[in-house]
Amino acid sequence: MAKSIGVVLFGCGNVGLTVGKRLQDCAASHAKRYGLRFDLRAIVDSRGALFDAEALANLGAIADFKQQGNSLAQHAQGVSTSEDIAQHLEPLASSGNIFVDCTATDRISGQLIEAIQRGAGVVFANKKVLTGDWSTFQQLTGPDVTGRCRFESSVGAGSPFVAAVSRVAAAGDAVHRIQGTFSGTLGFITAGLDKGRSLSELVREAYDLGYTEPDPRDDLSGMDVARKALILARVCGWSLEMSDVDVQGLYPASLSDVSVADFLARIGELDADIAAQQEAAAKEDCVLRYVAEAGPQGCQVGLRPVPRSSPIGALSGTDNILNVHSDIYSSTPLVIQGSGAGADITAAGVVADMVEIAVARFP
Amino acid sequence: MAKSIGVVLFGCGNVGLTVGKRLQDCAASHAKRYGLRFDLRAIVDSRGALFDAEALANLGAIADFKQQGNSLAQHAQGVSTSEDIAQHLEPLASSGNIFVDCTATDRISGQLIEAIQRGAGVVFANKKVLTGDWSTFQQLTGPDVTGRCRFESSVGAGSPFVAAVSRVAAAGDAVHRIQGTFSGTLGFITAGLDKGRSLSELVREAYDLGYTEPDPRDDLSGMDVARKALILARVCGWSLEMSDVDVQGLYPASLSDVSVADFLARIGELDADIAAQQEAAAKEDCVLRYVAEAGPQGCQVGLRPVPRSSPIGALSGTDNILNVHSDIYSSTPLVIQGSGAGADITAAGVVADMVEIAVARFP
Repeated sequence: MAKSIGVVLFGCGNVGLTVGKRLQDCAASHAKRYGLRFDLRAIVDSRGALFDAEALANLGAIADFKQQGNSLAQHAQGVSTSEDIAQHLEPLASSGNIFVDCTATDRISGQLIEAIQRGAGVVFANKKVLTGDWSTFQQLTGPDVTGRCRFESSVGAGSPFVAAVSRVAAAGDAVHRIQGTFSGTLGFITAGLDKGRSLSELVREAYDLGYTEPDPRDDLSGMDVARKALILARVCGWSLEMSDVDVQGLYPASLSDVSVADFLARIGELDADIAAQQEAAAKEDCVLRYVAEAGPQGCQVGLRPVPRSSPIGALSGTDNILNVHSDIYSSTPLVIQGSGAGADITAAGVVADMVEIAVARFP
Repeated sequence: MAKSIGVVLFGCGNVGLTVGKRLQDCAASHAKRYGLRFDLRAIVDSRGALFDAEALANLGAIADFKQQGNSLAQHAQGVSTSEDIAQHLEPLASSGNIFVDCTATDRISGQLIEAIQRGAGVVFANKKVLTGDWSTFQQLTGPDVTGRCRFESSVGAGSPFVAAVSRVAAAGDAVHRIQGTFSGTLGFITAGLDKGRSLSELVREAYDLGYTEPDPRDDLSGMDVARKALILARVCGWSLEMSDVDVQGLYPASLSDVSVADFLARIGELDADIAAQQEAAAKEDCVLRYVAEAGPQGCQVGLRPVPRSSPIGALSGTDNILNVHSDIYSSTPLVIQGSGAGADITAAGVVADMVEIAVARFP
């Protein structure tokens, strides 16, 4: 008899719905291997929520309904006032249930912290709550709740970066430095620069392929990579804040406030500068990569020349990579490499986190 | 107030004592980060055991005592009869305590299975018990005990191979094939072949440096790699047995039964054949690596030509690597690379496993 784990899904976009779908698809293997059954109890979007079991069973219909531009508040079985939503959510915030944050907001951080304090598990694909102040991070990951909060997919999609660094920390091994690339989108763009293509051409292609955020500056600003670097640094035990991250974006302040269409029209202004950097790097047998580097004192995030033959230099496609240098991994680093983008792989990381919490913390 | 976890250490060699030392060194970080304190309650070797708290506190003295060729049975505070040892161990086989197997025997498998069934955690650096029959593996890792048995250091020292594959399996992702190198010793030897050195020279050097087992055939037979491949295959969910592993050793049957000294004297007989394989590989821009490959139908382990520019071909030193190809990691594999040998890194993997069990399973 499989143990039932209630699931509350915040965020009803591509990742959220892929998590729901994957849980349905894995039902047999989760029951057989872990004696677990995940039961979806709620989906919450920015304006409403669904708690009706019959409606929740048909994820395809929910996806279609959302695709048509609707909020769950408008759904026939939807709940729309925040009071009603809170009332339905309250009994779910308890041991044996897992709240999954697939949003891109930090407005629900209070709700999630309360849920974890009341015994629920919380899994984040979202980076926002984890990159608030250090004391909030501690509330989520400190000794009282250790093991009930997981967030693999907040960094590097589902590749086990967080899991690997967590193990190094658990072994009491002192990490000196971590280094890596944490953006599938910027990986695609910098690998394209290797082939002599222009930045503007690559950004427009990435935009058209849907690799970038709706506003490509959300990728090109480096803020997404900066948040990921901060999360990994905190897992190393370094009490850093966002203000300790030196972020060098790929576009100047003059392009910050124009519309997306204007930005895409004007990004060619950057081509000459990037091409010059690329050429200088090539002379040293290097390529440009958007690299994050972190140590106990802070993080730096920006475009860097790296040796063409190094693991980071050899990256192509949307793969991400992480190198961990520590007391024990001293002569050569611990290296993790895997696909850094895509709803499937992000959802897989979320589901692995859910299984680990359920196996670990809900007897 | 830190939660106390009792520790029973089987095996009193380099790895076992390094685990004990690491637990002492990590005491402050384990208390602060996880609210945990590991208390060593027993060390057991092949002929005796120590349960005396004062004696156990001085690991340096125990190391010296063992170094002089003594068994714990001969220790002033030692316990020597198996009845006495069993009587002391019985109350420790319960929830809140962890048994750690740093031996190279399968004689204690019954004891360890009983401990896990009675609620204790079990951590293996040893491969023997995990490569018994599939039903024993199921008893150790099935749904009733999931999360109380961990064995990262049985494969690839402490690099998170098992953790990574476990996460892929937990996400319900279907693994099609895993491939890698799982022996620091054979990595050292094959990387040396790249430089035109002879097999015999490299084996003698690895032996002199203490990289090989006391009988280097234990490495060169491929059995160690075969066991590691089988363990990872089982984590993928494939119900394989040792008889499903095709193991191609590096020496012929005619050298199986001679003494170690005779083996080292005669290993030059193999040089010409290996040099010919190396030369053929080089013509295809390949190098020789001792590769393990596994799929749902079985495992193959042996010396193979691999492209010089591939991640496995680029390996040097004692690093190990694992590639995971699955439904989700389809266009490029998930890759983990890290040092594959050494007591420090092996002990670190054991300690990370202990923390994860303690955080997860002992409320």
